[in-house]
Amino acid sequence: MQHSYKTGDAGHVDFVGAGPGDPELLTLKALAAFEQADLVLHDRLISDEVLALAAQQAKLVDVGKAGFGPSWKQSDIDALLVDYALKGHRIVRLKSGDPTVFGRLDEEIEAVQAAGISWQIVPGITAASAAVAGIGQSLTRRGRNSSVRFLTGHDMKGFADHDWNALARAGSVAAIYMGKKSARFIQGRLIMHGADRATPVTLVENASRPNQRILATTLDQLPTDLATAEMDGPALTFYGLAPRDAAQAVTEFNKEHA
Amino acid sequence: MQHSYKTGDAGHVDFVGAGPGDPELLTLKALAAFEQADLVLHDRLISDEVLALAAQQAKLVDVGKAGFGPSWKQSDIDALLVDYALKGHRIVRLKSGDPTVFGRLDEEIEAVQAAGISWQIVPGITAASAAVAGIGQSLTRRGRNSSVRFLTGHDMKGFADHDWNALARAGSVAAIYMGKKSARFIQGRLIMHGADRATPVTLVENASRPNQRILATTLDQLPTDLATAEMDGPALTFYGLAPRDAAQAVTEFNKEHA
Ligand SMILES: C[S@@+](CC[C@H](N)C(=O)[O-])C[C@H]1O[C@@H](n2cnc3c(N)ncnc32)[C@H](O)[C@@H]1O
Ligand SMILES: C[S@@+](CC[C@H](N)C(=O)[O-])C[C@H]1O[C@@H](n2cnc3c(N)ncnc32)[C@H](O)[C@@H]1O
Repeated sequence: MQHSYKTGDAGHVDFVGAGPGDPELLTLKALAAFEQADLVLHDRLISDEVLALAAQQAKLVDVGKAGFGPSWKQSDIDALLVDYALKGHRIVRLKSGDPTVFGRLDEEIEAVQAAGISWQIVPGITAASAAVAGIGQSLTRRGRNSSVRFLTGHDMKGFADHDWNALARAGSVAAIYMGKKSARFIQGRLIMHGADRATPVTLVENASRPNQRILATTLDQLPTDLATAEMDGPALTFYGLAPRDAAQAVTEFNKEHA
Repeated sequence: MQHSYKTGDAGHVDFVGAGPGDPELLTLKALAAFEQADLVLHDRLISDEVLALAAQQAKLVDVGKAGFGPSWKQSDIDALLVDYALKGHRIVRLKSGDPTVFGRLDEEIEAVQAAGISWQIVPGITAASAAVAGIGQSLTRRGRNSSVRFLTGHDMKGFADHDWNALARAGSVAAIYMGKKSARFIQGRLIMHGADRATPVTLVENASRPNQRILATTLDQLPTDLATAEMDGPALTFYGLAPRDAAQAVTEFNKEHA
């Protein structure tokens, strides 16, 4: 639905999913939103290729949060959005993947809505969808798992707590966002709750991008292998999934990007 | 990754996500796959608008499964895919939403792979992403839920069993696919495990399509309200989410589609 609280010449905000990085994974609706916008406020995670497309249509404003160094507070972003919109700008608020998945979307919607500005959400391909495609698997599979969980490695309070007991059961599949720093914590919790140490765990770094890398390991070896792999791009961790034909996958990957 | 087991003139299969129905929610990559294809094998759930786009590029073959009447068996579809590909066709196997979410994808990949045919998965916008955008909410929200579950109302054995205990806890959010027939079963299980009867439940029928309808109810009223609503299109059930500004949402909807 289009949330129209618009009166007079107030602007508009489209909260747009940028997908995982490959510009081909943008939707037509995202492109149309770029065309209508005059400002695009974006995070750090958006790929250069996607930003280049957006920049053809509108002015870019980087409101990305850096791990270190000068960084935007959520409240600053909220205020900036409202400020620009009230000046009559048509804004794309560009978020990586799908804006509704670990995207801190509600804070911004609430600010925009409180100011009487119209807005809309344009869904995007979330990292889990792109990453699972990259390993040739499904998030759900008949006879294996009739549910899949998207969870975050850390939340406001630190490492996020989850229903480890249920996750530890054979056949569970989870897509873990922001799961690198919490890998050892998650491993410990799952093993404590009875998970099989041999459960496959697969990390997909930079899913859908030219520098995509796949690390296939087990719950047992996760922290060790992760340390060796030195992944510093965004990575999705699959608990309970191995790449289809792991060896082949890696070979293909090297061939393609050689 | 591109799974290239190709030798000689064998065809190729792209397993492509068609998204939830709005053709604007197709990715550029899906469009490119249509352009390269000469055959598109599709399910019943794909919208007419998306099929029309595909038909401009390639011949359509309906392998949809109807609830009643003549229907394709999974093994027939597998065989047809392999057969066409071995004749050298470039095939798009079009699946609604994201092909990796309750899409029976593995069966087909395995058949194609066993025949030595190259294939690739092109992710799509899954129904949960489109539906949650339609109610102006997020699948995850800081301080409320640090995980979200995608689950199916029924599986091979009938109504699907889930970790009701964890789901029954306050703040849980789940996107339930194929949840209409199992609504009463799910309600019973959750209440039995201690879920609050007042927990919001929202159904989004035909998400992203011109005939999108939103039903905002509670766990307590779910079966009753669902019976009254007479939804016969595909619907996504959110457990633990209410539309943002329910009244407004419905008004907007009526205005837009009047
Ligand atoms: C703040 S969350 C945002 C998620 C985003 N809204 C989505 O739907 O994909 C950031 C996390 O998403 C995951 N992520 C985002 N882009 C990714 C990519 N291209 N490859 C792998 N993981 C990615 C990583 O786990 C990263 O730490
Ligand atoms: C066999 S599953 C396929 C799911 C699909 N692969 C996806 O990712 O959305 C079919 C179920 O998806 C949901 N669904 C698909 N399209 C929908 C739409 N446009 N609106 C609401 N729900 C939809 C319904 O719950 C439907 O019963």
